[in-house]
Amino acid sequence: MSQIKKVVLAYSGGLDTSIILRWLQETYGCEVVTFTADIGQGEELEPARAKALAMGVKEIYIDDLREEFVRDFVYPMFRANAVYEGEYLLGTSIARPLIAKRLVEIAKEVGGDAISHGATGKGNDQVRFELGAYALTPGIKVIAPWREWDLNSRESLMNYAAQHNIPIDFNKAGKKSPYSMDANLLHISYEGGGLEDPYWEPEEDMWRWTVSPEKAPDAPQYIELTYRKGDIVAIDGVEMSPATVLATLNQLGGKHGIGRLDLVENRYVGMKSRGAYETPGGTIMLKAHRAIESITLDREVAHLKDELMPRYASLIYNGYWWSPERLMLQTMIDESQQYVNGVVRAKLYKGNVYIAGRKSDDSIFDANIATFEDDRGAYNQKDAEGFIRLNGLRLRIAAGKGRKLI
Amino acid sequence: MSQIKKVVLAYSGGLDTSIILRWLQETYGCEVVTFTADIGQGEELEPARAKALAMGVKEIYIDDLREEFVRDFVYPMFRANAVYEGEYLLGTSIARPLIAKRLVEIAKEVGGDAISHGATGKGNDQVRFELGAYALTPGIKVIAPWREWDLNSRESLMNYAAQHNIPIDFNKAGKKSPYSMDANLLHISYEGGGLEDPYWEPEEDMWRWTVSPEKAPDAPQYIELTYRKGDIVAIDGVEMSPATVLATLNQLGGKHGIGRLDLVENRYVGMKSRGAYETPGGTIMLKAHRAIESITLDREVAHLKDELMPRYASLIYNGYWWSPERLMLQTMIDESQQYVNGVVRAKLYKGNVYIAGRKSDDSIFDANIATFEDDRGAYNQKDAEGFIRLNGLRLRIAAGKGRKLI
Amino acid sequence: MSQIKKVVLAYSGGLDTSIILRWLQETYGCEVVTFTADIGQGEELEPARAKALAMGVKEIYIDDLREEFVRDFVYPMFRANAVYEGEYLLGTSIARPLIAKRLVEIAKEVGGDAISHGATGKGNDQVRFELGAYALTPGIKVIAPWREWDLNSRESLMNYAAQHNIPIDFNKAGKKSPYSMDANLLHISYEGGGLEDPYWEPEEDMWRWTVSPEKAPDAPQYIELTYRKGDIVAIDGVEMSPATVLATLNQLGGKHGIGRLDLVENRYVGMKSRGAYETPGGTIMLKAHRAIESITLDREVAHLKDELMPRYASLIYNGYWWSPERLMLQTMIDESQQYVNGVVRAKLYKGNVYIAGRKSDDSIFDANIATFEDDRGAYNQKDAEGFIRLNGLRLRIAAGKGRKLI
Amino acid sequence: MSQIKKVVLAYSGGLDTSIILRWLQETYGCEVVTFTADIGQGEELEPARAKALAMGVKEIYIDDLREEFVRDFVYPMFRANAVYEGEYLLGTSIARPLIAKRLVEIAKEVGGDAISHGATGKGNDQVRFELGAYALTPGIKVIAPWREWDLNSRESLMNYAAQHNIPIDFNKAGKKSPYSMDANLLHISYEGGGLEDPYWEPEEDMWRWTVSPEKAPDAPQYIELTYRKGDIVAIDGVEMSPATVLATLNQLGGKHGIGRLDLVENRYVGMKSRGAYETPGGTIMLKAHRAIESITLDREVAHLKDELMPRYASLIYNGYWWSPERLMLQTMIDESQQYVNGVVRAKLYKGNVYIAGRKSDDSIFDANIATFEDDRGAYNQKDAEGFIRLNGLRLRIAAGKGRKLI
Repeated sequence: MSQIKKVVLAYSGGLDTSIILRWLQETYGCEVVTFTADIGQGEELEPARAKALAMGVKEIYIDDLREEFVRDFVYPMFRANAVYEGEYLLGTSIARPLIAKRLVEIAKEVGGDAISHGATGKGNDQVRFELGAYALTPGIKVIAPWREWDLNSRESLMNYAAQHNIPIDFNKAGKKSPYSMDANLLHISYEGGGLEDPYWEPEEDMWRWTVSPEKAPDAPQYIELTYRKGDIVAIDGVEMSPATVLATLNQLGGKHGIGRLDLVENRYVGMKSRGAYETPGGTIMLKAHRAIESITLDREVAHLKDELMPRYASLIYNGYWWSPERLMLQTMIDESQQYVNGVVRAKLYKGNVYIAGRKSDDSIFDANIATFEDDRGAYNQKDAEGFIRLNGLRLRIAAGKGRKLI
Repeated sequence: MSQIKKVVLAYSGGLDTSIILRWLQETYGCEVVTFTADIGQGEELEPARAKALAMGVKEIYIDDLREEFVRDFVYPMFRANAVYEGEYLLGTSIARPLIAKRLVEIAKEVGGDAISHGATGKGNDQVRFELGAYALTPGIKVIAPWREWDLNSRESLMNYAAQHNIPIDFNKAGKKSPYSMDANLLHISYEGGGLEDPYWEPEEDMWRWTVSPEKAPDAPQYIELTYRKGDIVAIDGVEMSPATVLATLNQLGGKHGIGRLDLVENRYVGMKSRGAYETPGGTIMLKAHRAIESITLDREVAHLKDELMPRYASLIYNGYWWSPERLMLQTMIDESQQYVNGVVRAKLYKGNVYIAGRKSDDSIFDANIATFEDDRGAYNQKDAEGFIRLNGLRLRIAAGKGRKLI
Repeated sequence: MSQIKKVVLAYSGGLDTSIILRWLQETYGCEVVTFTADIGQGEELEPARAKALAMGVKEIYIDDLREEFVRDFVYPMFRANAVYEGEYLLGTSIARPLIAKRLVEIAKEVGGDAISHGATGKGNDQVRFELGAYALTPGIKVIAPWREWDLNSRESLMNYAAQHNIPIDFNKAGKKSPYSMDANLLHISYEGGGLEDPYWEPEEDMWRWTVSPEKAPDAPQYIELTYRKGDIVAIDGVEMSPATVLATLNQLGGKHGIGRLDLVENRYVGMKSRGAYETPGGTIMLKAHRAIESITLDREVAHLKDELMPRYASLIYNGYWWSPERLMLQTMIDESQQYVNGVVRAKLYKGNVYIAGRKSDDSIFDANIATFEDDRGAYNQKDAEGFIRLNGLRLRIAAGKGRKLI
Repeated sequence: MSQIKKVVLAYSGGLDTSIILRWLQETYGCEVVTFTADIGQGEELEPARAKALAMGVKEIYIDDLREEFVRDFVYPMFRANAVYEGEYLLGTSIARPLIAKRLVEIAKEVGGDAISHGATGKGNDQVRFELGAYALTPGIKVIAPWREWDLNSRESLMNYAAQHNIPIDFNKAGKKSPYSMDANLLHISYEGGGLEDPYWEPEEDMWRWTVSPEKAPDAPQYIELTYRKGDIVAIDGVEMSPATVLATLNQLGGKHGIGRLDLVENRYVGMKSRGAYETPGGTIMLKAHRAIESITLDREVAHLKDELMPRYASLIYNGYWWSPERLMLQTMIDESQQYVNGVVRAKLYKGNVYIAGRKSDDSIFDANIATFEDDRGAYNQKDAEGFIRLNGLRLRIAAGKGRKLI
């Protein structure tokens, strides 16, 4: 333990990471550098600075990473229509690789030899932080206090805080909620508490970002989203930056009760876990992205994307954002988006996102061919006979040899 | 053409298939046997009998296939969570193989040498009917009048009907709607008309099975669905047959404005097409099935299912229900459902289906391990370190050799 | 038929395409432009010019496409380790898209409105030619005489040739062999004749490019292949162009009896077909490429490539080289090859290619970690315990709930 | 450590596992039960009994598992044409789950609370043993001495042996070879020693099961393999048991120099490793199985198998034989083999396996359709036009909109 000289800690300013800060100082006798990022979690960062200073930290990093987060992580992921296990929009998963990247960058800047984080030994986040760190800086050391110390209950943590003069009010969020929460510009998540019973429905006041659909406006709202190469670049015709797009969609979705999700998922470390999520903007983005792709993507390209999507989503969920296989898939996905331009019109209403229209200069929807009316020769219906007969040839041969399908 | 002696026609009793009936009699000089099935389309079938009789048909088959449809087609498909292109629940696709099967069965019974249907040469349904027929009866002849005749406009059809004394009022549905519609117990679909412009939003009165979310009840409704081997066997504790389950869920979903979908899809014959769908019961079923699987399926089994699902869905969409590859996948999917038993509690509200709880005697959700509280040794957090380090080993080696991921 | 004014014909100079040439002139009353390419089939091209001139052709294209063929088609395909149905190296398939490309390019240059080829209506080549042509020039017309005319037997062709003064000696290859053959720099193929019985073994003198392994040298030969970004750039240290590499490997492989293959494959048009192939250079390339990848590719990248390979190979086999989905996959495959540099040493002996060594400056094989000897801490064996325990967690939980795997 | 009362050890009788036996007795103070299996490794087992007795073991299990090994493990795997990373036939991987199964079965019989094995902490075998054990008996304890003790060099092992009176001559194999070897009825493997340099070619006398191709007979040998549901049931018309089939093919392949493989593979624990393998019978089996499938399997079934094969092979390589996902895939694979019956004729010659013929009553090769001669109407070539035009429709539309593929 004496080998660690300087550790960069992902520091939220809350009680848990404040305890970790002190524990690192005491246990490793090392200097701690704190890193606090604004990735849209909706909390002020300056209190974290004050607390770090109060605990003797000399090097304090506080970064606004919101644009980088959406531009380089959220947007690329949404190009893939990534959904884990059919439902989860990967809100927590996609933020971790950015934190990992900054931790090792800062370690390099300050001459740190280790990083540390507040993720427990049961969850996915430890994996995401650490795989990212190892992939970017293979020699880095990682200190994961939750896997090392013996402060395994809330009570022992409180005792430690009391003994080391760490103000309990650090943990304001924790006092308000029985849930373990995590938030960034893409989503807020809830775990623990009553959610550990999968048949229990959480009370309405657990949800923080969205109104209940019941209390959402009685009138629907229409919005227009403009896409360029698979990314939203304007809302209702107003161009805006990626982070502004997502913040605006969160506001719109939240107002209309959109993006609540309650599920049981499979963690990478092997157990099932119950989670509740609010992803208002992301839910609109996924639906709208599929809509703009529906008129601009080639069928086989779209199907190939769909078949690879679960794997891509698992990569992100499992912490392999910083891996050659994710980059390889990303190259392919990005290539597919060159024509994904145009406008999607969506209707927001009490928890629902309906697609009301999609148009594009790059549309390959051809009304002349698709029409039920006379197409004036654009399509020769007789072609279908040969198409069917040859596609069925192997089936006819097999049936002719007596093979049964029933 | 003189070779056809007896043809079995998929006959709805509507104007189009009545014209086909007459056209077959005239063009092929052959006997026509009609087959009309109740697959839950919500129309009376006896008028079809009267019309067939009036047109000189001697052998008339009218079958209630609703239970077979849901039990042997809809239920197996939902075990796979099948969705085409991310959204479409395959309502039309799944009904065609049953019709194909009955057509060739009847052909065998009556000594028919051909079958005929009213699907056009531009759509997927011709493929589904004909591939199914060829796969089950390889020597069968298929007559697809829309690909053969020159009645390519509404006007020419009307003229033909007038010249041959086919009452126009046969086509009641057609008069009411500018859309081409198709219905069965799983869904109703709309194509054509204004929908041929993908940026146009259909008027409210197009939708027939669901109330608009705006007009749905202001109070949510909770239901409990009981699963056995992946299939719903009871609603709110009342055991019922597959078709009754689906009819009941359609009623519930329709009442709450659930299951509307508006999309542009890629047809197997090569063009994109706009469709609108109402699948109230199916929308509830998909969401609930994922929920019961979430606590009963092994992670890797679930992921394998997810990765193969797009292919399975495409098989059904493209007309390969009756194929060895679909059977092969089905064997695997059915195998996966042996533990998919339990109860899902769902909340229905204005277009939304929310999962409020899931429980099962076969649950492999383990609260003792997942808990954020002290787990008393059920899980050793220290295991995670080795897990992460070895999963990251290849990444560390590559980074150590200087490979860059940024 | 009167609409065709000028057609570009893929013309080999042999009897069949000479008959087609005349048949096009007669049947369509159109001008025919001939296109003859050297893609390494090993025949002189000038006789084709003389014959075309003799038949009144005014515009004659004769191109040496060997370098383009290997550089832009064969090499990209081998980066994927593409093999169709586990065995076939796609020798015919990969040449067709180049021919298709040149046909439509020439049509554009000469103001032609159609292309024509000598592929039959039963095979894959018609599909490859025509899909390529449509994908590159959507309005092009295609004339496939074998699907149109009634010259369906060898006898009727001979009669046609006699009646139209087409010298029979045009067809030298055909006289020598009972097989239908096709050759290019990658391979030579044999179909038809006795091969139509899958239990019949072809006589030794069918094979043209390779000596029989029995007659190959008794002494093995070692060669060194140098790779740069997945492509061979030098043999035994001598840099050479792609076509020269392949020609050299063909000579080496042929001398050592390497690359014979006899199989039954599934054609895209629906039937099974027996084929025999000689791919001497390609067989060496496939084996060596896997060897250089084995020390330079990340595991997950390699596995992803392996899982997508069958689909990529099917795309090429089925004629979709010129498609957005092939391009999308190619982008990903090419991305994966950036570190595939180094040297492979191979031993050639009587039909076998053995890998005798592989080395690379970009190797990520780490002997310090892999060693069975003391690794001095490069790898901590204790990490494996946590790795195994967490990978097994879901299995332990399921077994603990009583689920059986036997 | 005091908690272990009785441990079942996978005991080969060699030096390493003898040291482990003593180390377990000393370190854990527990009773050791030995389990020695004949899985075709070609060593006598009775010496293992004598040695165990000499070391005070009271319960000694010696099982002949050869038939079970081939029937229940090797044969099912070969139905899938399983190959890891394009080349490796999984000879070691497939034996481990059987050993794991017997270890926990014996533990149950004797009331043991732990199992132990001699696999190191760097390899795949530890994972395969332990995942299997956990999946079948979740509460079992596993002792992996190589991960626990400090005997990390050959020298320290020798010292331990000397100090504890373990005769060095136990390790006969070890003295003869600089390689780490493993053998069973499917293969023999070599690792370590000079192989740790991937550019070094092993000397001829490393190989033990096959003659060098250079010394193999100058005359080829033909054999006939009879398949029933994907498994070989007879050689040259003589019915024999699975283990006898494999032993016979090993003898034949070994005589003809067949089945040598030298590669660098990716281990599950994260590093690359060089291995050399001899799999004479398996190499023949793989080639012949593909041949019988080529005339009996439907195309799409075959392609689906090919696409899933890499994943299935990875599952086995990584130790997940005893997992629900492997069972799920196996169900599908076995389902596909119902028509895989018939006879394959193969030619063995100096390292090569050539397929000389294949025939089956269940063949769906149809010479009447495939023929280049007049097929008398079995296939309508005109069908191909529609087939191509509709398959190309999406490409034509996209090209018509100006999209470029070059």
